Amino acid sequence: MDRLGNGVDIESEGVWRDGSGVSEKDVMIKEPLLQKRINTTSQIALIGANVCPIESLDYEYYYAFFVLAGSNVILAAISAALCAYIAPAAAGSGIPEVKAYLNGVDAHEILAPSTLLVKIFGSIGGVSAGFVVGKEGPMVHTGACIASLLGQGGSRKYHLTWKWLKFFKNDRDRRDLITCGAAAGVATAFRAPVGGVLFALEEAASWWRSALLWRTFFTTAVVAVVLRTLIEYCRGGSCGLFGQGGLIMFDLSSAETTYSTADLLAVLVLGIIGGMFGSLYNYLVDKVLRTYSIINEKGAIFKVILVIIVSLLTSCCSYGLPWLGKCTACPPDLAEQCPTIGRSGNFKSFQCPPGHYNDLASLFLNTNDNAIRNLFSSNTENEFYYSSLFIFFTAIYILGVITYGIAIPSGLFIPVILAGASYGRLFGTLVRSVSDLDPGLFALLGAASFLGGTMRMTVSLCVILLELTNNLLMLPLVMLVLLASKTVADGFNKGVYDQIMKMKGLPFMEAHAEPYMKHFVASDVVSGPLVSFCGVEKVGNVIHALTITKHNGFPVIDEPPFSDAPELFGTVLRSHLVMLLSGKQFTKERITTGSETLRRFGAYDFAKAGSGKGLKVEDLDITQEEMEMYVDLHPITNASPYTVVETMSLAKAAVLFRELGLRHLCVVPKTPGRPPVIGILTRHDFTPEHVEHIMQLYPIFDHH
Amino acid sequence: MDRLGNGVDIESEGVWRDGSGVSEKDVMIKEPLLQKRINTTSQIALIGANVCPIESLDYEYYYAFFVLAGSNVILAAISAALCAYIAPAAAGSGIPEVKAYLNGVDAHEILAPSTLLVKIFGSIGGVSAGFVVGKEGPMVHTGACIASLLGQGGSRKYHLTWKWLKFFKNDRDRRDLITCGAAAGVATAFRAPVGGVLFALEEAASWWRSALLWRTFFTTAVVAVVLRTLIEYCRGGSCGLFGQGGLIMFDLSSAETTYSTADLLAVLVLGIIGGMFGSLYNYLVDKVLRTYSIINEKGAIFKVILVIIVSLLTSCCSYGLPWLGKCTACPPDLAEQCPTIGRSGNFKSFQCPPGHYNDLASLFLNTNDNAIRNLFSSNTENEFYYSSLFIFFTAIYILGVITYGIAIPSGLFIPVILAGASYGRLFGTLVRSVSDLDPGLFALLGAASFLGGTMRMTVSLCVILLELTNNLLMLPLVMLVLLASKTVADGFNKGVYDQIMKMKGLPFMEAHAEPYMKHFVASDVVSGPLVSFCGVEKVGNVIHALTITKHNGFPVIDEPPFSDAPELFGTVLRSHLVMLLSGKQFTKERITTGSETLRRFGAYDFAKAGSGKGLKVEDLDITQEEMEMYVDLHPITNASPYTVVETMSLAKAAVLFRELGLRHLCVVPKTPGRPPVIGILTRHDFTPEHVEHIMQLYPIFDHH
Repeated sequence: MDRLGNGVDIESEGVWRDGSGVSEKDVMIKEPLLQKRINTTSQIALIGANVCPIESLDYEYYYAFFVLAGSNVILAAISAALCAYIAPAAAGSGIPEVKAYLNGVDAHEILAPSTLLVKIFGSIGGVSAGFVVGKEGPMVHTGACIASLLGQGGSRKYHLTWKWLKFFKNDRDRRDLITCGAAAGVATAFRAPVGGVLFALEEAASWWRSALLWRTFFTTAVVAVVLRTLIEYCRGGSCGLFGQGGLIMFDLSSAETTYSTADLLAVLVLGIIGGMFGSLYNYLVDKVLRTYSIINEKGAIFKVILVIIVSLLTSCCSYGLPWLGKCTACPPDLAEQCPTIGRSGNFKSFQCPPGHYNDLASLFLNTNDNAIRNLFSSNTENEFYYSSLFIFFTAIYILGVITYGIAIPSGLFIPVILAGASYGRLFGTLVRSVSDLDPGLFALLGAASFLGGTMRMTVSLCVILLELTNNLLMLPLVMLVLLASKTVADGFNKGVYDQIMKMKGLPFMEAHAEPYMKHFVASDVVSGPLVSFCGVEKVGNVIHALTITKHNGFPVIDEPPFSDAPELFGTVLRSHLVMLLSGKQFTKERITTGSETLRRFGAYDFAKAGSGKGLKVEDLDITQEEMEMYVDLHPITNASPYTVVETMSLAKAAVLFRELGLRHLCVVPKTPGRPPVIGILTRHDFTPEHVEHIMQLYPIFDHH
Repeated sequence: MDRLGNGVDIESEGVWRDGSGVSEKDVMIKEPLLQKRINTTSQIALIGANVCPIESLDYEYYYAFFVLAGSNVILAAISAALCAYIAPAAAGSGIPEVKAYLNGVDAHEILAPSTLLVKIFGSIGGVSAGFVVGKEGPMVHTGACIASLLGQGGSRKYHLTWKWLKFFKNDRDRRDLITCGAAAGVATAFRAPVGGVLFALEEAASWWRSALLWRTFFTTAVVAVVLRTLIEYCRGGSCGLFGQGGLIMFDLSSAETTYSTADLLAVLVLGIIGGMFGSLYNYLVDKVLRTYSIINEKGAIFKVILVIIVSLLTSCCSYGLPWLGKCTACPPDLAEQCPTIGRSGNFKSFQCPPGHYNDLASLFLNTNDNAIRNLFSSNTENEFYYSSLFIFFTAIYILGVITYGIAIPSGLFIPVILAGASYGRLFGTLVRSVSDLDPGLFALLGAASFLGGTMRMTVSLCVILLELTNNLLMLPLVMLVLLASKTVADGFNKGVYDQIMKMKGLPFMEAHAEPYMKHFVASDVVSGPLVSFCGVEKVGNVIHALTITKHNGFPVIDEPPFSDAPELFGTVLRSHLVMLLSGKQFTKERITTGSETLRRFGAYDFAKAGSGKGLKVEDLDITQEEMEMYVDLHPITNASPYTVVETMSLAKAAVLFRELGLRHLCVVPKTPGRPPVIGILTRHDFTPEHVEHIMQLYPIFDHH
């Protein structure tokens, strides 16, 4: 808070003329958390651009640049410092991490409270600093973080616990809640409630259920009503840029929508080229990310320096490139103010004489939202020159690529939409002899083609774009473009989020079995040695096993006298074992204590604890005498574990593992007379790296 | 064809003045199949109403009624006869059947070619006969039928086979294709491509995959482009009512969309009451269906008689009730013709003097589409009286309930939308002192509340309504209404399609395990005696087992000398056994022939045949000598069957069975020294009926 406050002070030292800018910011800062999630953080973007008096030619241009670049660097550095020193997990989009979490990759720092705070303020800083980054990814992450905090039952430390939150004390409901949070994030970012539901289902969630659909729908319906109420409240302009555009951010409903076969062909070509650009974008982002990760690994200070360098580069582009733009006389019959001075708007005067505007400055020295609105605007065929569009497209494409991966929260949607929209508008201007569709419509289709080419979503993008633009009649065109671009791009590489997940080493499991799995059977990849317990086990053995291994699941094997022959009774979880031991219901003899054991515990003692909150084996205080006693594991054992026979194809085991959302899968022997469990398959055993490792150890499998 | 042709002749004998009516019909009949799917069949609905000269008062009213009722009865009887005598499976909506098929209930007559033909022509007849039925359900069924025919690789009999269709020779891809067909049906019926995708995913499909989303999206994108092209082509009016409304069937985009808290409350109440009406509708439909099924079971002629009775009742209502309507002077400032004579439109004159219209006649004596358009129309606050709306609502609600279940193809969407829209408009008129939302908007919200209350869909209804009306700004209101109505209705009963499936005895498996399953373990419900084969089995035994049982899957057990002890080798399918036997690769000795066996067969011999097309055991010609020989089952056995231990909870076994889409699940013993397979679980074993049966046999399970 203070940091941002200081920022305001510095800038208002004589540069800021427009008092409303300051008050907007104050309003923003005073807003409660929930409101902030809904607010468009980009409203304070490019402070220097909007209110910096370059337009009035009162000051030297160098001084103006210094103010612009200076304020950008300060905001960027604050954001980077937050990310680098407090919560490194908050850097980047956050969508790949949420997607991996919902797939079952449980890395708790991804959704920790510190990540949440840094994500919110870092994102505000990053977007305000004029970076070519979006707020959509961070909003999805923010929504997921809030959901995760709620799902952990609040915080006992701060006396923030609610009884009803105990319903989320299991994996599935917590995962559902986080899916709803992600849906709410998209719904607020794009003001697209249905789009939010579809995004959550198509991109984020790994398991779809009818109940989940209903829950996300409920969430985004609430978001829609809250959003609507806030917009209604802010209609007077008291919330800065937030109320702008109402529920439809980029209204295109007035655009023409009849089209000929030539138009269709042009749109198809646009989609194909857009798909190529999109997959190239993915390729470049991947390369840049790998390079940056080498730099970022050197230390937090290197992260901050990298951010500052990119910030300076961005400022140079934003301020330097508009000098290449030509001055154009304002169109005579315009409802809007032209040129716009002292506020955000379409026509920036920059270095031009009164009554003229610089089209390139209108794109660069503007909030990202307004730049998109400019590009989408219809019935303004001559607003932009070819050259300006080309310069803007090239600059944004390159800046977008080099910005993702620096240590600030950075969404991918806005850079891709910006680059796509300028590409589309340029394409539309170039093919005007063939197709007379509106350039604004072409800009939208260009954005669709880039989004399809990078993110590879279909239905959700379609609905998000529909809800962004309110032009239902061009739905067939958008669908066509998405089809073309996704098909083309799928030929080259994977979607950008999948790439990032892979690069980050998150073991995401696809819904289908990978081809290499067909050459293995379950027992091939099981890695030993197996640690198992008897039904009634010595306390010392349990403690030893919990200490020396990091396994979370152990098989429990009944042996005589509890059964006729050794047989698999079930599996037991580490957290349940620790809880059971903490109850100290031990016996001197090797006997079953049965349900008596459970009387010691309440119903929710064995519920899933919040991330990193559960009891640990180190917390236990077991005496040497107790170590020699016995504990009955039967009451806490899951007696119906899913099993596969050792000769089961790994591919089929993977499908079972993935579809049922398992964490442990027991492998049992095919022939009698052997131990009843051969091993336990975990997520790790299905990864290509593990299988490759096995193949190197036992090359014979290669020829299976 | 001829039957319809005759119908035309009778009616044109002196009653029809308007030649265009006849030519529309001819155009309709001559259209190719694909076009028909996209066409709105209701364009020839209520022939009597549109062109019957009651409006010009030239004839006696009794004569007019006779013509109306007569033509309705003829069309209804044709439709009923088709359904009753040729394809009984074509009656009703078809959505429950498609939903059950996609869940794994493989009843081949549901998607047979005869069903397809009857569905198309029966639906045209039914809608034209003025029944309160929709064309949406039948279109979904039609789409699924066409997909199923394609998925079976065409027809060898008619030399209509394509090579690439062999890719659908497996269950999953065929199911995907049928899902795409269902999506295409909704996309064409509502001209809502995205709605079609969501309908297919939310309501029709039981297994969602990313690839499936992509495929349905592709399908509906093609539908959208084709639809758009046809509408463009028909813009001149040469295709009758087809081109009307363009891609947006009921354009509401002009309606006001600011609303206050009072409006929100009114809408919430509307949703709650709508949900109650919706669940009452389900309850009544269920009761009526049970009554009708008793009548329908008596024979085909009873089915036809029932249809004729309902048709007469519908005609009486349509013609009799408008007499209760008052004559109103046409609004002066109207772009439209008023009253409309000789064509479909908003203002019907009926018995009124020139310059006046009868509001009730405008609703009853109109196509369903136009009646909905009338109810949705905005800025026409005073077009309808309270009393008229009330009469129409009551009549349509009752007619809708009693019409579903008679032997004609009948969709549920249109009756529910009609009843809901009139309810909503009535509600809006009643609360005008509290809320000043447009009555047309209230009509839409009423329709949403009824749809939510009967069908219980959320996202797909939202998007379908959005695509129907093109009013994005009231999306929050629609979401709110759907939430309220679904929540309320879920408290009373299940969705209408689930009810119908249950009534028809289709063993649909829910994605979650039912609570009663927790009280059983897998071995409780396995019903014997188990029929299993040895790895190398005597041909006679195989033939015998195939003849005396109807099982489709058999376990294969390896015994010494092929293994050390009896062990489960895998499962084998009936169709594969028959195919293997037809190859006659038998040996005199009990030896494995291994992969040699498979050399006899081509790659696609074991692919899934079309419905009812595969080889049957009766087709085999095995000599007595061959009966004593041995056949090696190893090459055709699935060596990685999914198994559960006998003590596995039935609930967990059900989840495994359902999530992986299995047909057979082997139950293996827990302790060694017993036969390696105890039994096989099939879909049937999880049904409540079967479990109840088990409970009656062994009451001890009740206390588990």
